[in-house]
Formats: sequence, C-alpha cells, structure tokens
Amino acid sequence: MSIESNLEKLGLVLPPAPAAAGLYEHGVLSGNQLFLSGGLPFDAQGELVKGSVPSVCSIEVAQKAAELIILNRLAVAQEQLGCLSKIKQVVQLQGLVNSDQDFYGHPGVIDAASQLLIDILGDKGKHSRLAYGVAALPLNAAVEIALILEVDPT
Amino acid sequence: MSIESNLEKLGLVLPPAPAAAGLYEHGVLSGNQLFLSGGLPFDAQGELVKGSVPSVCSIEVAQKAAELIILNRLAVAQEQLGCLSKIKQVVQLQGLVNSDQDFYGHPGVIDAASQLLIDILGDKGKHSRLAYGVAALPLNAAVEIALILEVDPT
Amino acid sequence: MSIESNLEKLGLVLPPAPAAAGLYEHGVLSGNQLFLSGGLPFDAQGELVKGSVPSVCSIEVAQKAAELIILNRLAVAQEQLGCLSKIKQVVQLQGLVNSDQDFYGHPGVIDAASQLLIDILGDKGKHSRLAYGVAALPLNAAVEIALILEVDPT
Repeated sequence: MSIESNLEKLGLVLPPAPAAAGLYEHGVLSGNQLFLSGGLPFDAQGELVKGSVPSVCSIEVAQKAAELIILNRLAVAQEQLGCLSKIKQVVQLQGLVNSDQDFYGHPGVIDAASQLLIDILGDKGKHSRLAYGVAALPLNAAVEIALILEVDPT
Repeated sequence: MSIESNLEKLGLVLPPAPAAAGLYEHGVLSGNQLFLSGGLPFDAQGELVKGSVPSVCSIEVAQKAAELIILNRLAVAQEQLGCLSKIKQVVQLQGLVNSDQDFYGHPGVIDAASQLLIDILGDKGKHSRLAYGVAALPLNAAVEIALILEVDPT
Repeated sequence: MSIESNLEKLGLVLPPAPAAAGLYEHGVLSGNQLFLSGGLPFDAQGELVKGSVPSVCSIEVAQKAAELIILNRLAVAQEQLGCLSKIKQVVQLQGLVNSDQDFYGHPGVIDAASQLLIDILGDKGKHSRLAYGVAALPLNAAVEIALILEVDPT
C-alpha cells in the first residue's frame, strides 16, 4: 500500500499547508504521537467554507468541507514528518460542526472525513472519534477537525 | 479490588457494546493509551436519552444518561482489552452536555459519570476532565462522553 | 532559561491552585504526558470571569480570562510536578470560548493564552491547539482551557 498512489487513484492532490489562524503550531510531536491543531476548511483558492449547518451551509457542502480539512491536515502531517508513510495510525479525530440548534446529523457530516482518511490511509486511517455541534467556530468555519496520529518519530 | 465484584456490589451489569453511530472505531490503542470514541446514552432497551438540559431533559435524567455512557464505554473497553483489569488509570474524561444557553451546571451532570468511574474502578477511576455545554449533540443525545484510558496493552 | 525568572520579569505570580469544580483530578500523569483538567478563569480574589463573548464579556476581558487560566493551570502543574522545569513541551491546548452565536474571533481570545505560555515557557510553550465557541460553560465562565503537557515524570 502506498499513500501517494492512493491519493493519485482518488484524483487528490494535497494542498499547501495553510497558514495558522493564531499563535499555535500546526503540529506538535509527543513521543510517537503527533497532535495536529484544529484545521479549518479552506479550499484550493484559499476560500473558507462557512456557516451553520444546514441552514446556511448544506450537509453536502459541509461534507466537502470535512474532506478539505482532512487534505490540509495530511499536508501538515507531511510537512511535519517529511513523508506520509510515517503515519502508523490515526488515533483520534475530534470533529466539530457549526451547527443549527435543531441539527443532529453531525456523524453524517464527519463521516465524510472519516471515509476519506480510510480511503487514503487504509486500515491506518481507522480512528476513534468525538463528533458534536457547537454554537460558533473560528472565522465562522462550517467544520473544524483536530487529529492525533501515531507516527514513526525517527 | 476486583472490578467485577464492584460492579456486582453496585448491582450493575455492563450492556453489550453499542453499534457505532458512524465510520469510526469504538476504541484505538496507541502505546498504552486506549482512546475511546465519544459514547451516547443508550439505555438497556436501546433507547437514547435525548434533549437539551434542563429544559427538555432534567438534570437527574441527564445524570442517569452520563452513567449509562460510562457503562457502555466500559463495555467497549472490555471488548477491546479482553478484561477490565487491564485498565491502569482513567486519564481523561471529556464530557459534553446538550445544554440550554443559560444552564451552567455541567459539572454536576458529569459528576455522575465521574462518581461511577470511581465507584467501579476505585483510584484507577480518578481522571482529569473537561466538561462543557454544546448547542447540539449527535442524534440529539443529552450527553456525550469520550475517555482516554491508560491500559496494560499486552 | 528559567521559568521562574521569566515569571518575575513578566511581573507574574502563580496563584494557589484553585479548588476543583467537580469530582475530578486537576491533573493525571500518563507516561510522560500530564493531562490537566479544563480550568476556569478565577482571578486573584477568587472571582470568576463570566459571560458570553463579546455581548456580556468583552474580548479584552476574555483575553485576560484566558491568561488567568494559564496561570492557574501552571499552578496546578507545579503542584503536580514539584517544579515547572519538568515541563518539556506544551503538547495541546484546547480552548473553549463562551461565545455569542455570531462571534467568530475565538482565535484572538485564545491567542492571549498561547502568547502567555510562550512568554513564560519559551519554545517549550509552543503547542498544537483546538479553539472554538460553545453555547455554555460551567458556572457561566467566559473561557475554559485544558492542556496536555509533555513532562519529565521522574
């Protein structure tokens, strides 16, 4: 299995790692765990997918947003690790949806992120997860996702 | 101390591990840490305890919901580890309450989960904690709880 | 570099570690990671900084609140470790802002906490981060912050 060939098969290209939205690091290594900061859904043009789901941002667009974050989180991981093959396992995904108060379909939105991780990383992409809806996300993003990865730190 | 005898003394039986609500694993082991996904309060009949606290779901019912999650998280841990005695320490509990905007008693709701962990696991059940209220939880659950456990991985 | 001299230079004194707001530990050590519970912004007089940002609690006051939490989290770390020089790296900061639904400046609020960690700990204070807005925090606190630290556990 090659992560790069999976990306190619899926027709996906990792974007450049986005700029940080504040005074934090994109990722910090602790032993063999890489903690990646919460990422926001910037598209290839650098536009942010915004708004509460589903009243402003539809479920389908929010799912695309979740996929955008996975791609930019993997771009960050590649920058930190040098090579995506150093990812041994996605340990935890914390997925936050900018949510209408009467919207309860957060798992369906975050599933798009989970599925893409598995499509790209295979069994190494399988993860524990915490998904929920919040009142407001930074910059009015539709979705925010943070990851903890087990990696080869050498 | 035996966890099983504590459960018996408390008159508690672990439920079957619930089905996942999305494309995630119930738990992922990283070194000697077991990351358990966010669990929802399904009762013995498989009914979900729902609604915002306290306008729709009373504090007392939300506390029972928090206890239900602990039991199904331990059921998941048992499935993953083979045996609950492999739990060395509950490291972190992240507890989310489906919260009215003017409700600030989240610690009192999540305390029911914390107390039950200590009742069942003794000192090994003592944990760090992050409790807060959110606008909306998956499936309109009243409470969601994720755990990180330190375990004997062998 | 001495953390104590940095505190002195900044004119800062660590407060006493605050009382827990529930049935949890202030911190739990797992290997060389110290998980600190979510802290609330109590000031030197023990008053809690409260309210939704920015309608009730201004951004400036919320930033001060974020700094108060860093100081009381470091007080907890000192109590747990004996000495702040055992902190090797701040690994993750999870920052929650009690947020109006149309407020999106959470990074700017949590940046005050991030900056203070770097001012006090230098490069060891640099961290991954997850910042977002929630509907309601315990005791109506304006901000809540939890930390994961890599430490020398001996």
